[in-house]
Amino acid sequence: MRFEVTILGSSSATPIFNRNPSAQLLNINEKYFLIDCGEGTQLQLIRFGLKAQRIDYIFISHLHGDHYLGLVGLLSSLHLNGRSKPMNVFGPPELKEIIDIQLLYSQTNLRYPILFYATDPAAPGVIFQNNDITVETFALNHRIPTTGFRFTQKRRQRRVIKEKIDELGIPPECIPLLKRGIDFTDKQGVVHLAADLTREAEVPRSYAYCSDTLCDGSYFPAIARANTLYHEATFMHDMIDRARETFHTTALQAGQAAADAGIGYLLIGHFSARYRDLAPLLDECRTVFTNTLLAVEGNTFTL
Amino acid sequence: MRFEVTILGSSSATPIFNRNPSAQLLNINEKYFLIDCGEGTQLQLIRFGLKAQRIDYIFISHLHGDHYLGLVGLLSSLHLNGRSKPMNVFGPPELKEIIDIQLLYSQTNLRYPILFYATDPAAPGVIFQNNDITVETFALNHRIPTTGFRFTQKRRQRRVIKEKIDELGIPPECIPLLKRGIDFTDKQGVVHLAADLTREAEVPRSYAYCSDTLCDGSYFPAIARANTLYHEATFMHDMIDRARETFHTTALQAGQAAADAGIGYLLIGHFSARYRDLAPLLDECRTVFTNTLLAVEGNTFTL
Repeated sequence: MRFEVTILGSSSATPIFNRNPSAQLLNINEKYFLIDCGEGTQLQLIRFGLKAQRIDYIFISHLHGDHYLGLVGLLSSLHLNGRSKPMNVFGPPELKEIIDIQLLYSQTNLRYPILFYATDPAAPGVIFQNNDITVETFALNHRIPTTGFRFTQKRRQRRVIKEKIDELGIPPECIPLLKRGIDFTDKQGVVHLAADLTREAEVPRSYAYCSDTLCDGSYFPAIARANTLYHEATFMHDMIDRARETFHTTALQAGQAAADAGIGYLLIGHFSARYRDLAPLLDECRTVFTNTLLAVEGNTFTL
Repeated sequence: MRFEVTILGSSSATPIFNRNPSAQLLNINEKYFLIDCGEGTQLQLIRFGLKAQRIDYIFISHLHGDHYLGLVGLLSSLHLNGRSKPMNVFGPPELKEIIDIQLLYSQTNLRYPILFYATDPAAPGVIFQNNDITVETFALNHRIPTTGFRFTQKRRQRRVIKEKIDELGIPPECIPLLKRGIDFTDKQGVVHLAADLTREAEVPRSYAYCSDTLCDGSYFPAIARANTLYHEATFMHDMIDRARETFHTTALQAGQAAADAGIGYLLIGHFSARYRDLAPLLDECRTVFTNTLLAVEGNTFTL
């Protein structure tokens, strides 16, 4: 099952040339999920050849402009391009008002419904699930209410070993039982163990997203043992005071968070415009957590 | 006096790769004026090396997203980058509400004041003037209230011919009088005509901006004899029905408007995403108005 993320924006609040504000596109089993939607996200999707109409779920972490100002433009373009299927939007309750007022004044009657689900950092938990994944929110500690998101694959059924099934001539109607781990008894009364006729399914993987936060450890339980963690790393550690003051994280802290939370791979982003060259941020982070990569525009990571 | 426009966006409502929604930057005597501010305008300014902090006046024609969705991001970045001087914003009254609600929910207290001036297509007229120019609004005929803008240079004083001034030894305090056309009488009682000692100032020029409109002639008096006209040309003329239905203009009509209104040069823009190649739009327009140019991203035109 495909489980990957493409980075659409890596800048913090003030964009610089070639860096866009936060947005990431998840492809989970060929379904598109957008996380945050900074200004210019629709253009970034075009730039990287990703079809916006395939997005059915949008998750907004908080209402600082660099995380949502591209949303109304994206929703409008989907409308103008003929969308009829619903769009599911998850975000702070005030986001609904921001969308509605702009649709009202532009006299836009969307041809498709927006299904809005308010998030609340004070009430974290599962906000969405389908056959493939579960999405949970957790509270981050930023200047305004902010949630992180964790996407976790569901445990899949065991997979049959085709050659053995064919060899024993097991009838098709018994296969769903095998996948659920129920043994097969043939006409002669011989029991064939499900464990012998099937393989373990893939181990469920998970991706945690921490948009903007003071790195205070409060959310470490919620991201624990994620296979991949995206964490903001706005500043180098020599600017720790500025990071604390603005409720942001340094590259060193992001690495420490990944180490403490038992993460597999760490992606860092949300870089301050003061850093033209990102290598020092990556180097600093790697001093404490080796498996770190830069979450920069156009890169796709298998999770 | 510098009087030029740089195009930041040439697309209509749905952007396509390498075309951004509407925005133009006027440089009038080294002062920056922004007309419309589609999504991504702040990135376009960075791209073309234009300092956003030099903008003191922003004019928004109407509240379709492709004309204003970049505004809140731009205002936020100016704040984060330390602006303290006021920003003057001219636009439909509801724009104020759209800005305020987003600053409220992001808990942003701007470090600089926004001076907001509501426009009203039902009450067209002068909305701004300084020593260099006058800005007037006029009503366009679009699906929602929309104004065009006309920037007209003020007539300047006559310019003294330095060699003649030096030759006659005319005292400095008399020069302002000469510039105003008052003759100079020397100590011997000889009258020297101001007309002989000065040259005519530049002829005032004007730039008219028609963002989105049905090309119904109603606004032609307001744009008459502008040196340069920007006019939308969303469609080719074979789509005249679609243009009428959506209150837009075809390339042919834009050319006819320029011809009817006695314009010097015509810039066309706001192109539908269906046109990858813009040459046919230019060709069509030139069949009726030769002095036409494409208003595309990064081009600067002396007005």
